[in-house]
Amino acid sequence: MRLALIGFGNVAQEFARILLEKEKEWAVEYYEGFRVVAVSTRGKGSLVNPEGIDLRRALLDLHEGGSFSPENPERARVSSLDIIGLDFVDAIIETTTLDIAGGQPATDHLRSALSRGKHAITTNKGPIAFAYRDLQALAASVGKAFLFEGTVLDGAPVFNLVRENLPGCRITGFSGILNGTTNYILTRMEEGEGFAAALETAQKYGWAEADPSMDIDGWDAAVKVTALLNVLMGAGITPGDIDRQGIGGITLETVREARSRGQAIRLLCEGALVEGKPVGRVAPVHLPADHSLAKIRGTSSALTLKTDLAGELTVQIREPKIRETAYAVVADLLTVARRKR
Amino acid sequence: MRLALIGFGNVAQEFARILLEKEKEWAVEYYEGFRVVAVSTRGKGSLVNPEGIDLRRALLDLHEGGSFSPENPERARVSSLDIIGLDFVDAIIETTTLDIAGGQPATDHLRSALSRGKHAITTNKGPIAFAYRDLQALAASVGKAFLFEGTVLDGAPVFNLVRENLPGCRITGFSGILNGTTNYILTRMEEGEGFAAALETAQKYGWAEADPSMDIDGWDAAVKVTALLNVLMGAGITPGDIDRQGIGGITLETVREARSRGQAIRLLCEGALVEGKPVGRVAPVHLPADHSLAKIRGTSSALTLKTDLAGELTVQIREPKIRETAYAVVADLLTVARRKR
Repeated sequence: MRLALIGFGNVAQEFARILLEKEKEWAVEYYEGFRVVAVSTRGKGSLVNPEGIDLRRALLDLHEGGSFSPENPERARVSSLDIIGLDFVDAIIETTTLDIAGGQPATDHLRSALSRGKHAITTNKGPIAFAYRDLQALAASVGKAFLFEGTVLDGAPVFNLVRENLPGCRITGFSGILNGTTNYILTRMEEGEGFAAALETAQKYGWAEADPSMDIDGWDAAVKVTALLNVLMGAGITPGDIDRQGIGGITLETVREARSRGQAIRLLCEGALVEGKPVGRVAPVHLPADHSLAKIRGTSSALTLKTDLAGELTVQIREPKIRETAYAVVADLLTVARRKR
Repeated sequence: MRLALIGFGNVAQEFARILLEKEKEWAVEYYEGFRVVAVSTRGKGSLVNPEGIDLRRALLDLHEGGSFSPENPERARVSSLDIIGLDFVDAIIETTTLDIAGGQPATDHLRSALSRGKHAITTNKGPIAFAYRDLQALAASVGKAFLFEGTVLDGAPVFNLVRENLPGCRITGFSGILNGTTNYILTRMEEGEGFAAALETAQKYGWAEADPSMDIDGWDAAVKVTALLNVLMGAGITPGDIDRQGIGGITLETVREARSRGQAIRLLCEGALVEGKPVGRVAPVHLPADHSLAKIRGTSSALTLKTDLAGELTVQIREPKIRETAYAVVADLLTVARRKR
């Protein structure tokens, strides 16, 4: 299977490293080799080679110079859409950064790939929050895979779990801790650090962006809630429909008071049916200390699914790193390979 | 798909109820109807009807008289193996009770079904703990499904999760709370009840058998650890190979002392690679209060999987009832239907 990597940030680079480690093993297990034939980035250049990109060199060049070397013969002046259109691309792995206003250009990338009969895998929440129904219908109409496990709960199975493991089961609601950055900050605050200092620590360790507003204001969480509502509960909504409150107003005093009452403050993500209609909420709430989600500390995440037949199931991932998010791409890719087989 | 229910205890009866509720919905979704054509029990009689058993009557007769009515024209003098051999049986659902000595007669039931080219679904841990490799090889050789999601963690996905959602991933170890009865007793003891009283309460609510030794002595947990080691880590062992210690020696004093040190005692189930070899352990251990498994209370269960690529994943199910265990059968059955499609 010949792959195009659209976006080549931390997740895609880690995916490339896993592929280099495992390509021989997978080629045997799935009766199929995986070859990256194109890479496109916004600012680091693009690479094309139908025989297979030299991923080791690509990673090294980025590491040393911050962009692909102009002397690399694979370097090409092509856009992401050009690459998606190449005849010899069978599947795209879309890992561009989230656009909160409309899920672009990721949605266009996925639509373009699917409409040309190529499999589409993404870790970008935007398209799932803004265009899930369309993209899903398009994928079904061309008989190609559209998979996005990496969008929620990093490498832990959520969408694949519901699709593969809970047949005949209806998801009636969910609650979770879905944003590692805010959870890390709230955990630091429980240990006595003020909001500003905790945010700085999160930035120092790379858990928060230079502009942390997407996390702090609850937007990242709201996009994830939207994705869950759209995929698991058929909502057809966008992130603006989520009742959203961030953690900007939480003071050390609030955290201390909660603690003294045996509670923990968590940025809770919820989805529920209200009068039969799926609705979503993101807000800092006081949880009793023995609540299973109160125990989710640091960058760990968890999602509890309420179901009609399988009861209440929780999936947790402990302090995920880039490798675990990159694994979500692996899981989706190998799922495609299995289906082909 | 024509089903034979081998065993008709609580789980199989609940499965029959779910089937009655959902049969029309599933027939549409899976382009296939499901019909129970035979039921066998050890002491309540057996039923056969190629056109489909009247499940409502069967359930009612059991409820009212404790066995199938002699006046029921579907009643037949046939053994479980007779039923498995019937031409018009496409799949068996094996829910007989666990035999800790050798996994019989469940193993024979499954072997007989698979060797006759029928799909085999079970909630019985015995065959997985005693004959997994053989049964799996047999299923592969005849191209039929051999599924057993209900054997560990009730209705929560474990085996199906690893098989479907973690492709390319190696399970390097696990730890969990896998026995609801002992966990319920330990939780009651944390609330101040002595061991004997807590056991009595567990029996009163139906969480413990009249002979509770299978649970108390850690056998049930050891069989589950064996099943996990055999399926997820290729161990090829039996329950006697597990380093096993029950909760019989735990006193209220021990629980109180642990609590005063901020710890919780839990019957921990563990699997690990020791010098490359999979080994298992069941023992009451002191967990720090903020350990994620210390928070598993009452009859809830949880399993943490350690993986090479997907990090550390935990799956929890909250206070499962019979319906959730019966759902595991549903999940396996609909997985078979999907594969056929």
